[in-house]
Amino acid sequence: MNNRPFKARLGANENVFGPSPRAIAAMQEASADQWMYGDPESHDLRAALAAHHAIRPENIVVGEGIDGLLCYLVRLVIEQGDAVVTSDGAYPTFNYHVAGFGGVLHKVPYRDDHEDPRALFRKAAEVGAKLVYLANPDNPMGTWHKGADIVAAMEDLPADTLFILDEAYVEFAPEGTSATVDIEDPRLIRMRTFSKAYGLAGARVGYALGAEPLITAFNKIRNHFGMNRAAQIGALAALEDVAYLAQTVGNVTAARNRIAAIAQANGLSALPSATNFVAVDCGGDGDFARRVLSELVARGVFVRMPFVAPQDRCIRISAGRPEDLNLLETALPAALTAARS
Amino acid sequence: MNNRPFKARLGANENVFGPSPRAIAAMQEASADQWMYGDPESHDLRAALAAHHAIRPENIVVGEGIDGLLCYLVRLVIEQGDAVVTSDGAYPTFNYHVAGFGGVLHKVPYRDDHEDPRALFRKAAEVGAKLVYLANPDNPMGTWHKGADIVAAMEDLPADTLFILDEAYVEFAPEGTSATVDIEDPRLIRMRTFSKAYGLAGARVGYALGAEPLITAFNKIRNHFGMNRAAQIGALAALEDVAYLAQTVGNVTAARNRIAAIAQANGLSALPSATNFVAVDCGGDGDFARRVLSELVARGVFVRMPFVAPQDRCIRISAGRPEDLNLLETALPAALTAARS
Repeated sequence: MNNRPFKARLGANENVFGPSPRAIAAMQEASADQWMYGDPESHDLRAALAAHHAIRPENIVVGEGIDGLLCYLVRLVIEQGDAVVTSDGAYPTFNYHVAGFGGVLHKVPYRDDHEDPRALFRKAAEVGAKLVYLANPDNPMGTWHKGADIVAAMEDLPADTLFILDEAYVEFAPEGTSATVDIEDPRLIRMRTFSKAYGLAGARVGYALGAEPLITAFNKIRNHFGMNRAAQIGALAALEDVAYLAQTVGNVTAARNRIAAIAQANGLSALPSATNFVAVDCGGDGDFARRVLSELVARGVFVRMPFVAPQDRCIRISAGRPEDLNLLETALPAALTAARS
Repeated sequence: MNNRPFKARLGANENVFGPSPRAIAAMQEASADQWMYGDPESHDLRAALAAHHAIRPENIVVGEGIDGLLCYLVRLVIEQGDAVVTSDGAYPTFNYHVAGFGGVLHKVPYRDDHEDPRALFRKAAEVGAKLVYLANPDNPMGTWHKGADIVAAMEDLPADTLFILDEAYVEFAPEGTSATVDIEDPRLIRMRTFSKAYGLAGARVGYALGAEPLITAFNKIRNHFGMNRAAQIGALAALEDVAYLAQTVGNVTAARNRIAAIAQANGLSALPSATNFVAVDCGGDGDFARRVLSELVARGVFVRMPFVAPQDRCIRISAGRPEDLNLLETALPAALTAARS
């Protein structure tokens, strides 16, 4: 099993602060009952999510992480040769599913290290895209837009393009980052997850929010018994532990500030982040950042980096525990020296 | 959550004897670590399964239950209009995935309440099938063939048809039921699961065994981070607890015998079974069996029945704990009386 092969596991944007103790206890209690299939409708979880978002359960589909839901969605919408728009350097698993179903990807560059909603929507109009993907806050840069600005940009969204708004990290973001939209707006589907702020990446629980006809369409193709039973129960307990979520967000904010301070102390600059990771500008090109990354990995600190230039001048560091960030603080000066030599 | 809405939950072929205590303990311990993604390669589990089956890890793909693996396999093989062969009344989730990817199903009748390998393979030749599906032991009838007879029937398997042998229940079956084949035989892929004999239906862990090129093809489309981390760990612990598996098989055998005795005491006959359920012939037609089923359900005993005539003269009863079967024993005479009136 992938058991901490690194001293500091700061590369996969996992939530090192872990799930709520109530979620852990619920999953432990459910372990003995894993002989039963999970509820194929995720009834209780969807009911709680509906209350949480002030919508109806019919507007929610629960699935095997956002990755699983993106696969279903691409399958529902994309036929061989259909155009899809995303940002160059954005979430590769979305691109993987698009390619897997024969879609043709069109990529728009980042703008000042942010995804560029209006450029994405204009490109969608230009190529007649069936889908356009945008993460807010963004991965891998950690930058974000106000939800209201996303909504305003939707003026440029073509009528026959479905907009996937991936809000995987939104619980870490400032108030107003989540887009406020009519849930029955057929132009938009939003993705959420228990993998990040709720600390349940290993449990595989994501959900999509959207208009009822689109959500219902998932039922024609999804793996109805695909949800792990203990994971459903754990996610519900995690959702209910509002105080623990607030504590996690506080821990992550402190970790982001510490990463920025460590970067600054080493003459590097951290990009502002609304996620549980920080993109640190290494001050050179992609080759230099790759050397820094290699030298950190060689010192037991697992980090990753953006995929394309000029964003690949950065390394991406997940918000760690104080002990993880101590290791980063110790390793970074030597890693930079080695990378420069 | 789907928490025992019935007094006796004997309809879904779940393993009421539950997972190994070692698997439960392993999943409980893993619950606190669910903030980490599971291993996308399921390395440790595949290594253990390779040793268990005396093959290489490259011949094994682990996925989100057999249902998830059937979805991937159908996606890999089937294009719009391709022919697929299965038995009339066999596993509906396979048919769901075939229809979902535009395949055209051709169905072969059961023969004396058994699936009919030679007829399936002849039909595959007749229609130019890309896939042919057979479960051994069979669900919903519980009947089985010797593995050697399946292999002998493969003489009739067309060269360009891939044979899916679903062995979900094989751990409950007599020695010699599992087919002994060359793992690199490109004509065959076998499906196995931790949902049945290992008592982990809620965990969603299945695996497929086959030739390396076919197994490798799954990596082009599967949801690489789709496996629940605690489930991977629990499945590995379950696999290692050989003594507990033997105890479960003993419990299930005793339960099958008890169901047969209860049936006989009520003037009904139980079909021989190599699974963790028993098809009980109600001695009438499908309408009569449906009335028996309804009357049992009304008495808190959840059972199901085969989907097509003449197999739908039976009801399908999962191997329950003694207390579950006490409820069945109590409810069945009154249910039969009500169904006859």
